[in-house]
Amino acid sequence: MSSTFGTLFRISTFGESHGGAVGVVVDGCPPRLEISVEEIQAELDRRRPGQSQITTARAEPDTAEILSGVFEGRTLGTPIAIVVRNKDARGSDYEPFKDKYRPSHADFTYDAKYGIRNWRGGGRSSARETIGRVAAGAIARKLLAKHFGTEILSWVSRVADISAPQPDPLKVSREEIEANIVRCHDAATAERMIDLIKSIKSKGDSVGGTVDIVARNLPTGLGEPVFDKLEADLAKAMMSLPASKSFEVGSGLEGTYLKGSEHNDLYYNTGERIGTRTNRSGGIQGGISNSEPITMRVGFKPVATILMPQQTVNQAGEEVELMPRGRHDPCVLPRAVPMVEAMTALVLADHFLRQQAMTHGAID
Amino acid sequence: MSSTFGTLFRISTFGESHGGAVGVVVDGCPPRLEISVEEIQAELDRRRPGQSQITTARAEPDTAEILSGVFEGRTLGTPIAIVVRNKDARGSDYEPFKDKYRPSHADFTYDAKYGIRNWRGGGRSSARETIGRVAAGAIARKLLAKHFGTEILSWVSRVADISAPQPDPLKVSREEIEANIVRCHDAATAERMIDLIKSIKSKGDSVGGTVDIVARNLPTGLGEPVFDKLEADLAKAMMSLPASKSFEVGSGLEGTYLKGSEHNDLYYNTGERIGTRTNRSGGIQGGISNSEPITMRVGFKPVATILMPQQTVNQAGEEVELMPRGRHDPCVLPRAVPMVEAMTALVLADHFLRQQAMTHGAID
Amino acid sequence: MSSTFGTLFRISTFGESHGGAVGVVVDGCPPRLEISVEEIQAELDRRRPGQSQITTARAEPDTAEILSGVFEGRTLGTPIAIVVRNKDARGSDYEPFKDKYRPSHADFTYDAKYGIRNWRGGGRSSARETIGRVAAGAIARKLLAKHFGTEILSWVSRVADISAPQPDPLKVSREEIEANIVRCHDAATAERMIDLIKSIKSKGDSVGGTVDIVARNLPTGLGEPVFDKLEADLAKAMMSLPASKSFEVGSGLEGTYLKGSEHNDLYYNTGERIGTRTNRSGGIQGGISNSEPITMRVGFKPVATILMPQQTVNQAGEEVELMPRGRHDPCVLPRAVPMVEAMTALVLADHFLRQQAMTHGAID
Amino acid sequence: MSSTFGTLFRISTFGESHGGAVGVVVDGCPPRLEISVEEIQAELDRRRPGQSQITTARAEPDTAEILSGVFEGRTLGTPIAIVVRNKDARGSDYEPFKDKYRPSHADFTYDAKYGIRNWRGGGRSSARETIGRVAAGAIARKLLAKHFGTEILSWVSRVADISAPQPDPLKVSREEIEANIVRCHDAATAERMIDLIKSIKSKGDSVGGTVDIVARNLPTGLGEPVFDKLEADLAKAMMSLPASKSFEVGSGLEGTYLKGSEHNDLYYNTGERIGTRTNRSGGIQGGISNSEPITMRVGFKPVATILMPQQTVNQAGEEVELMPRGRHDPCVLPRAVPMVEAMTALVLADHFLRQQAMTHGAID
Repeated sequence: MSSTFGTLFRISTFGESHGGAVGVVVDGCPPRLEISVEEIQAELDRRRPGQSQITTARAEPDTAEILSGVFEGRTLGTPIAIVVRNKDARGSDYEPFKDKYRPSHADFTYDAKYGIRNWRGGGRSSARETIGRVAAGAIARKLLAKHFGTEILSWVSRVADISAPQPDPLKVSREEIEANIVRCHDAATAERMIDLIKSIKSKGDSVGGTVDIVARNLPTGLGEPVFDKLEADLAKAMMSLPASKSFEVGSGLEGTYLKGSEHNDLYYNTGERIGTRTNRSGGIQGGISNSEPITMRVGFKPVATILMPQQTVNQAGEEVELMPRGRHDPCVLPRAVPMVEAMTALVLADHFLRQQAMTHGAID
Repeated sequence: MSSTFGTLFRISTFGESHGGAVGVVVDGCPPRLEISVEEIQAELDRRRPGQSQITTARAEPDTAEILSGVFEGRTLGTPIAIVVRNKDARGSDYEPFKDKYRPSHADFTYDAKYGIRNWRGGGRSSARETIGRVAAGAIARKLLAKHFGTEILSWVSRVADISAPQPDPLKVSREEIEANIVRCHDAATAERMIDLIKSIKSKGDSVGGTVDIVARNLPTGLGEPVFDKLEADLAKAMMSLPASKSFEVGSGLEGTYLKGSEHNDLYYNTGERIGTRTNRSGGIQGGISNSEPITMRVGFKPVATILMPQQTVNQAGEEVELMPRGRHDPCVLPRAVPMVEAMTALVLADHFLRQQAMTHGAID
Repeated sequence: MSSTFGTLFRISTFGESHGGAVGVVVDGCPPRLEISVEEIQAELDRRRPGQSQITTARAEPDTAEILSGVFEGRTLGTPIAIVVRNKDARGSDYEPFKDKYRPSHADFTYDAKYGIRNWRGGGRSSARETIGRVAAGAIARKLLAKHFGTEILSWVSRVADISAPQPDPLKVSREEIEANIVRCHDAATAERMIDLIKSIKSKGDSVGGTVDIVARNLPTGLGEPVFDKLEADLAKAMMSLPASKSFEVGSGLEGTYLKGSEHNDLYYNTGERIGTRTNRSGGIQGGISNSEPITMRVGFKPVATILMPQQTVNQAGEEVELMPRGRHDPCVLPRAVPMVEAMTALVLADHFLRQQAMTHGAID
Repeated sequence: MSSTFGTLFRISTFGESHGGAVGVVVDGCPPRLEISVEEIQAELDRRRPGQSQITTARAEPDTAEILSGVFEGRTLGTPIAIVVRNKDARGSDYEPFKDKYRPSHADFTYDAKYGIRNWRGGGRSSARETIGRVAAGAIARKLLAKHFGTEILSWVSRVADISAPQPDPLKVSREEIEANIVRCHDAATAERMIDLIKSIKSKGDSVGGTVDIVARNLPTGLGEPVFDKLEADLAKAMMSLPASKSFEVGSGLEGTYLKGSEHNDLYYNTGERIGTRTNRSGGIQGGISNSEPITMRVGFKPVATILMPQQTVNQAGEEVELMPRGRHDPCVLPRAVPMVEAMTALVLADHFLRQQAMTHGAID
């Protein structure tokens, strides 16, 4: 159960979905960064269940408390512990199927691995675990913003087969994205997505899709070849989120259909720096950022919990029918947006610190 | 420059493509495993340049020497150092463009990050770095085979827009895959792929595509939630390979178009164990292996080196034309097969050891 | 600020002495271990300030709350978060010298390193940080006790120049040690030590000394050469405690006066196992436990806070006089006993898990 | 078998004493540092066996070869692999007692842990393993010298009961230390030490003692509370060396006899910086360097190999007599000097890089 992520900007999350609390310890945040509990809360509110008609109805305020590491509004350089109490945990909802393995959930594998399981909700496999990530991500994001004016934005680019038009990665704004409950930058597409999700929800079914991510205003030089290439750590970050199934960077899967003569990004002198005329590399070459925007796409499967009867087995290995209850998301994508942004911020902040060590450790 | 990978089965690679040698140190391999230099060499031979008409002509025998950690044919439990001398390094090939940034290569970002670069070849960003991975992977593979009869197979599933039919992941064999130089299990498709690559090569261009991977005969319980989920570590492993652009696990991107009622894998009792009737989860649920085959797909971009004139800039920031020379692969996919197999083996061996710690650390 | 310790049984502590709370997250504890908050509290009570006339008067109940990772009295294999609220924090005590550097404290170096400091108390350099270690240590100790009947005992072996007679490391008992407030196994010596500490306290001064530690009933094979030798990790563990100045293992410093012919531990067959007739190795050879008792000694300096005027400088670099206030220990040793026991347990539990990976990862 | 040390300046050593080669991979050294193989060789020559009448007669030239990471005399920022071939390995010397456990050696514990052992010499437990450390230490030392003019010096301060007078830590010089074969800064004491070692050697016995270490010209701020305190990492570094039994920092064990009023280091303004009038803290407060010289003492036991008959047991558990052969050091101390210097340099270089990350990661 490795709940620690990052080398220098390092987080450790804790907490089960229906235990006492969930939270995070951030170790390695540089000192003297201004941070308020409100800034952290703002990101948690974007992740919060019950925020709209198309998310789960679980009513969690998800109120963050900072236990350590911040003094008079600034970080101390010491571990920042943040805790969120579980309030609306209805463990009893899970009582009827506590020994039945929900299909495509982690019940069976947790039982097989640990020989014990908090059957009240998803335990650590629940999306509630990401509260700690989002809280920590708010700090990482602030650090990068202060240093470079870095902006990290994500939006829902596709729900099932409803795709949004590709925005200009340099211009897409948080305002556009947050303007609707599905978090799609394109208003017309958003409406169709919302209609689809509502329709799916009414049938007790669920639906997947993709989110796109851009990180812009970044320095050159982030990423540590060969194993800790920037895209490698970003891929791990995204694929560690519940329900993610695919990761693409830059031109992604589409780029693999091209010829080298079509795919290569040609360098030119922008007047201020060396840039590339296209950005199929997604801002990363050889595992190192080149100061073009970092672009990624992450695919999420349809949520495994559906309110339909399904065949499964129980702990005794007997084949049984399962009829789930509980409050769940018909589509994880709108709430995945703050999660992937947080994970992006955490990876970039970590590599920013690692790069400082190398740059300032070198002899000039 | 983080060249270490793995927690308990840990490798550290070293070496530039045109320096004295490349190699690896494997730390944490359990003792008493029978391993011969021939077994390691066999995997290196699959990765070797110059192995066929559709790979680079660089003539490297890539002969492995074991310097430590093996005694009388068995591992000691101590670090296993393996070294491969560079033989056919023609650094002078690179002289004409030593200060010109090759498009979509790592020249510019390495210069920006390190302020120095071994301009003779790709240095650490070269695919030669993967020699250490493949050598170490041969040991990891042996360990898993001995314990579980694990088989790890990869094949080229698509070159540009030529796709192979999907094989049965339980039946596809190494013999089928190794029967042709492009390493596609389907002979007819292989022929078309080879023709395409030869045609592309003759034009000095390059082409990308995908490889598929299956790992079968695995125990339940591998993978460490929440950050070191099995698919997260596999994603990082694959995205740390040169030229990889996308990673998919199980149903991957296609699965994100489905509804939950279509996507969920229903459990049943196989008579011997709890299995799933479909395997859209790709053998992993909640980050933990469920003993179904692990299935993945990795996309590789077209090789950046093309023998055509391209616009770029030099170290001084001046816009110049680049006409590459050197010996390069028109398509990385056939040689990527042993690389992705090695990375898969390394991740699984590491998680196997981690799982032993937990299982045998628990009170029964 | 690296607040994480251990490879597989890994703890992360957090909290300032006068912030909201202190605590710990334990990641990697095997599942299904029975543990109660009372068992954790029992160890915290031994560490608690205000427990006797010879410790600081700060009145902290140090009540532990388990936030996660335990379900129905047993560990889940998931992170165990434990938090202790600070109750009797009187930050205002520190107001008068908030900008004066207390001699041999960490005020100056924290300011120099971080450029900010929680001047209310010692912050992270306070012994309150060890609450997290002691709480986590209670779990590690339980794990070892369940597996091997391991006992980890420490006692005050010397205060200033008052030395206790060396007990038989196989027989010394917790009852003897806990029979007096200074935690010396020898009652007569304890009395003299207590008198000395009281006398020192009345003068506003402080005093140092040594604690001895024994860990018995341990398996052979713990310890990972070459850098993570068992004594190396134990040394790091002890030297990371506030105020520790020296570490010895086995024959320690005294042993360095002997000849090889006097120092070597001769092997013999105990009938049940291979043992050594003497134990100058302190239970560790080549960095690996040999199943003899592990014996160590740790020296602690006199507490830096003394209630006497001292010359120092302030943040502006001006030479000033400091007259400390606050509530402090005249001698850290009695409360160091549970700390060194906890650190010993943490190192041994971690190496126990690491050894399981190797043992069960090997082919038989 | 954890053979990796360091967080950012990270080394991995490999090699058995009588295998093909020993060596090291240094990962994380900043780029553009001038380093030559001669500088590395110079340190290896100080560690080399056969260097004088009072060391083992094994005739190893210990010639270093750099395989990677250095280009045109400067580091690339990529892994630096250094290899030393074993030349004078006489494994057959060990044949007669290959199944007898040498007292106070690691034969028994290696067998118990790994179930296999390279019985030709000490394998990884041999002091030959430190070749990699010393080679890497030469690079770390150069890095610190270039940045700060840091000097790291060690000398033999005691052999058995022959103690040298304490030198001024600011003035003791490498010339004084290297002026004699025992590496004691005081010529008269050195002579007595050498006589004692020769006498001990003639009897086939061995002898222990202490080395002292000073590191001067260091910046303020190195060290990462709470677990990676500078003295904690130094303690681990030293206690990971073969035969070390004790570690002291600053006033060490002697300081624990003092009162706080006697022990505290009073601050004053040196005119250039904030200094302390005494240095009982050994240059470290709260785990962080304060720019006073770092002072340490390490105790080494008498070498376990003595040329005298000893009672022991064999692999079958039978009690047998052992009469060792082979070529060994009667006293490890003169050769320990370059080892402890190297370990000091490695810890300081690592913390220097870690500190750069924090300092330059902070907002100004």
